[in-house]
Amino acid sequence: MTETEVEIRSGAYYDSVILMQLQRSLVDLPGILDVGVVMGTDANKDILAQSDLMSPEVQAAVADDLVIVVKGIDKASVKAAIEKVDGLLTFRRSSGIEEEYRPKSLETAVKMLPEAQWSLISVPGRFAAGVARQSLNSGKHVFVFSDNVPLEDEIELKRIAAANGLLVMGPDCGTAIINGVGLGFANKVRRGPIGIVAASGTGLQQVSSRIHQIGGGITHAIGTGGRDLTEAVDAITARQGLELLSRDPNTQVIVIISKPPASTVAGKLVEMARQLSKPVVINFIGYPTQMRIVDNVHFATTFDETAELAVHLANSSSISEHVGDSGIGRFAPGQCYLRGLFSGGTLAYETLLILQDYLPAVYSNAPLDKKFRLTDSLVSQAHTVIDLGEDEFTVGRLHPMMDNDLRIRRLEAEANDPQVAVILLDVVLGFGAHPDPAAELAPAIARAKAKAKSAGRYLEVVAIVSGTDEDPQDMHAQMQKLKEVGVVVEASNDKAVRYVGQLLRNLNLEISQVGKESLPRVDLATLNQPLAAINFGLGSFKDSLESQHAQVVQVDWRPPASGNEKLMSILERMKSK
Amino acid sequence: MTETEVEIRSGAYYDSVILMQLQRSLVDLPGILDVGVVMGTDANKDILAQSDLMSPEVQAAVADDLVIVVKGIDKASVKAAIEKVDGLLTFRRSSGIEEEYRPKSLETAVKMLPEAQWSLISVPGRFAAGVARQSLNSGKHVFVFSDNVPLEDEIELKRIAAANGLLVMGPDCGTAIINGVGLGFANKVRRGPIGIVAASGTGLQQVSSRIHQIGGGITHAIGTGGRDLTEAVDAITARQGLELLSRDPNTQVIVIISKPPASTVAGKLVEMARQLSKPVVINFIGYPTQMRIVDNVHFATTFDETAELAVHLANSSSISEHVGDSGIGRFAPGQCYLRGLFSGGTLAYETLLILQDYLPAVYSNAPLDKKFRLTDSLVSQAHTVIDLGEDEFTVGRLHPMMDNDLRIRRLEAEANDPQVAVILLDVVLGFGAHPDPAAELAPAIARAKAKAKSAGRYLEVVAIVSGTDEDPQDMHAQMQKLKEVGVVVEASNDKAVRYVGQLLRNLNLEISQVGKESLPRVDLATLNQPLAAINFGLGSFKDSLESQHAQVVQVDWRPPASGNEKLMSILERMKSK
Repeated sequence: MTETEVEIRSGAYYDSVILMQLQRSLVDLPGILDVGVVMGTDANKDILAQSDLMSPEVQAAVADDLVIVVKGIDKASVKAAIEKVDGLLTFRRSSGIEEEYRPKSLETAVKMLPEAQWSLISVPGRFAAGVARQSLNSGKHVFVFSDNVPLEDEIELKRIAAANGLLVMGPDCGTAIINGVGLGFANKVRRGPIGIVAASGTGLQQVSSRIHQIGGGITHAIGTGGRDLTEAVDAITARQGLELLSRDPNTQVIVIISKPPASTVAGKLVEMARQLSKPVVINFIGYPTQMRIVDNVHFATTFDETAELAVHLANSSSISEHVGDSGIGRFAPGQCYLRGLFSGGTLAYETLLILQDYLPAVYSNAPLDKKFRLTDSLVSQAHTVIDLGEDEFTVGRLHPMMDNDLRIRRLEAEANDPQVAVILLDVVLGFGAHPDPAAELAPAIARAKAKAKSAGRYLEVVAIVSGTDEDPQDMHAQMQKLKEVGVVVEASNDKAVRYVGQLLRNLNLEISQVGKESLPRVDLATLNQPLAAINFGLGSFKDSLESQHAQVVQVDWRPPASGNEKLMSILERMKSK
Repeated sequence: MTETEVEIRSGAYYDSVILMQLQRSLVDLPGILDVGVVMGTDANKDILAQSDLMSPEVQAAVADDLVIVVKGIDKASVKAAIEKVDGLLTFRRSSGIEEEYRPKSLETAVKMLPEAQWSLISVPGRFAAGVARQSLNSGKHVFVFSDNVPLEDEIELKRIAAANGLLVMGPDCGTAIINGVGLGFANKVRRGPIGIVAASGTGLQQVSSRIHQIGGGITHAIGTGGRDLTEAVDAITARQGLELLSRDPNTQVIVIISKPPASTVAGKLVEMARQLSKPVVINFIGYPTQMRIVDNVHFATTFDETAELAVHLANSSSISEHVGDSGIGRFAPGQCYLRGLFSGGTLAYETLLILQDYLPAVYSNAPLDKKFRLTDSLVSQAHTVIDLGEDEFTVGRLHPMMDNDLRIRRLEAEANDPQVAVILLDVVLGFGAHPDPAAELAPAIARAKAKAKSAGRYLEVVAIVSGTDEDPQDMHAQMQKLKEVGVVVEASNDKAVRYVGQLLRNLNLEISQVGKESLPRVDLATLNQPLAAINFGLGSFKDSLESQHAQVVQVDWRPPASGNEKLMSILERMKSK
């Protein structure tokens, strides 16, 4: 036979570390079998029920009630344990040895530690926004560990912060590392050249740990809270963080980690990342990607890969090459379009795919998305990539890999269009194909370039030559013939298309403006000054900061009006008058 | 002033190489400015119009008509040119020097070259299926270059072929390389250990060329035609090809290339690939993927990457490790489920993501897809991964990274479930986290394992320890404590989850049956005998085979009943009687 006794304390507030310690102390008492010490939420009551610690009194408890359930071998042991609760709570509170002075308010804490730039908040969720608001008003950046904070509060806090050049990490921000000091849950990670922005606490921990394990190190790791990359929050903190790390001289590689964001937000962040001069590794965990590298941006799919890529990029000092804007001056005003004339269907397809990284719309007779289907395959519009090997062109006619006639006619027509800047061609060699395609294409290209020149324009022609040095046509000779008439020649479709993509992106500058709507800058000193903070909530976070040699003041925070919500709202209204 | 004359030849059939040659010969005549020689399809008429070669007579022509348009400087030149048409056509036909004997039928061709295993078909699309059917009936594999072949014909041909252990490459198959001989358009590529199956002609050409360029080589490259990976065709040829290459002793790495397939077909092929003992590189061009490596299967996104990965894998002789089935015997019958108990939300998330590669359904309180949401977070069902850091568990309770109580209770409950085989945990170290989690978890795990053992079961416990050697908890000491009680410990979540995934996949064998519905085997000699073929259609393909030292017989093919469709269908009906 076992005995169980229950004690309910209404409207009592205790730090959850204290509750855990109380539970442990009780369970260690003689004759005690199991103990539950929790706030009376439904979830907690369900868990008590599973552990066979349920009773009608527990069932009647509400979220504000502290519930203490003690199960023991007999009535005496249980009674003895319950009687010790007050003593244990008082003992834990004053934590024994010469208690230091704890300010009761932010104002006093600020006076005690004027150099504090940060406010750390781990009070219960429904109180966190209030503390954060107060801290922002005092000019502090905030780190909100608390969860269960309403979304509207997050949006409001982040907007206020951004307007004032302050950061709000969180709510529900598990981790950050600022200037070598871990906030919340954080690993001890070597300092190094990698900066992190993460909307995922354990993602940040795992990636920073893996970076350390494989020999790398980090500058700063900025947490944003898991909801930052939703459409509603619009990645305010992530964008601030990215911008901040882009200016940080010690950060050479930037990592972005998030569960799959809203697609508009993902697009905005990728666009921002592409405008930086530093390599960026993005892990939108499980967000399906079609490409792995776009300019300076690398996409990773697992934490391991994210860490490995970041360390690899930090070790290889080379910054990704960009096509300089310098080449743009050769073109006449109004020249802005691409015309791709392909004989290879899947080369055309890969081209359309890669161009998605550079141009918002490319028309085709074989488009990726039918909304970009040409109304007439014979008439290009805006950016166009034509597959001349499609069935419509090959009835009663040789395939364009064998017969260049149709392609040359089209090339001439495109080159006459004053809006055309770049013509992209494939030249597919091998058995069965035309015995000497360059001999026919090169003169036609030379004529087209000359005609454009005489009309005051510059025509860039780029060719991907697909084949081998053992092909009957001799790949190198074919490439040489094309180069001689000024064609930019590549053996890799990927390289050719990315070259063309960057050129057209620069020629169509308005695109690059996306994502440039910027937030007021956060002072770089935020990251690079010795960290000092004011801590509201879990005392263990204060201990952790101290063990990392950071300055910290613990506020002896209590829920306003002892957590009584009605009274709180009256107080709030009185204050604002 | 220019002069234009038109000649229409109704119902005439000419090989399109001959038409191209006629066009070129005419354009080279004195006084001639431009020439069009095409079949009178709507597309071709549009193209003539664009080149200013349109007239009412051309407009009136139909698809069966050969249209010849000649534009010249004066009437005399144009007339002289038109008069030469007959002579040029006759000359081209008999191609001058001592014409060899050309059989008029497949039967005769087979007698001339009994060792021919292949039929190459490049006749106009509407005739191609008939020639292919005849060839299959004679036991030949077929390569159908022709496009414009109806889908129903493709399905029928492939079903007949598969039932008889024969291959149908195409229709619209641009390329193949069998035993070093290129069919259709193919590059001269070094022989080597990489085998290719491709539903994309230029994809195959580009990847095989890149493989050659970076020093690799190929065994065989099997084309399937662009529609093979649709749901309707069900990847018959791709599956035959994959199976064939898996048995080919010279093929060490297999590459699969296709534009994005139907998702069911993609799933089937990936599943087939995973059951092979060779590394497989898959490029479903532009098909968004979440993962890059699953067991022996590597996903590539561009042609360049496909080639690089294949060559890299061929050079590194190591075959991917599989968990042997040997470990499975430790478990009792009925043990088949995973229970994951996570403190880190994003670690749980990545776990769910990776497990998609191994298990069809994993339930969670924070699932990837809401159809797998647990009805009650406190009660696991089938495979379950719980995030104990979710808001529902943390109101008025410490985070599970600080307090192991809830997790230990859950661990005990899961271990008592006789259907549970594996428990997966994360142990997140660092500042702020529990000072010694292994000290609490290890004894609980030891008890759970012992209890399972006493009930005749084996309980596998796998832990991912996330942290660094400089963390306050000392990562290595934590790992050691867990290892001592028999926990499988990993620092990488990816590795831990893939280990668990393979184990559970083996324990739930029925899953692995997917994709095992197999087609009759194609004789391996198909690939490894010297290639010999019968060619229907483009003479240039015959020349190309001869230049590669392959034996070939050209059939002097003509459309049945001179292309008259009514007559053809009467003949067809007479034959089948």
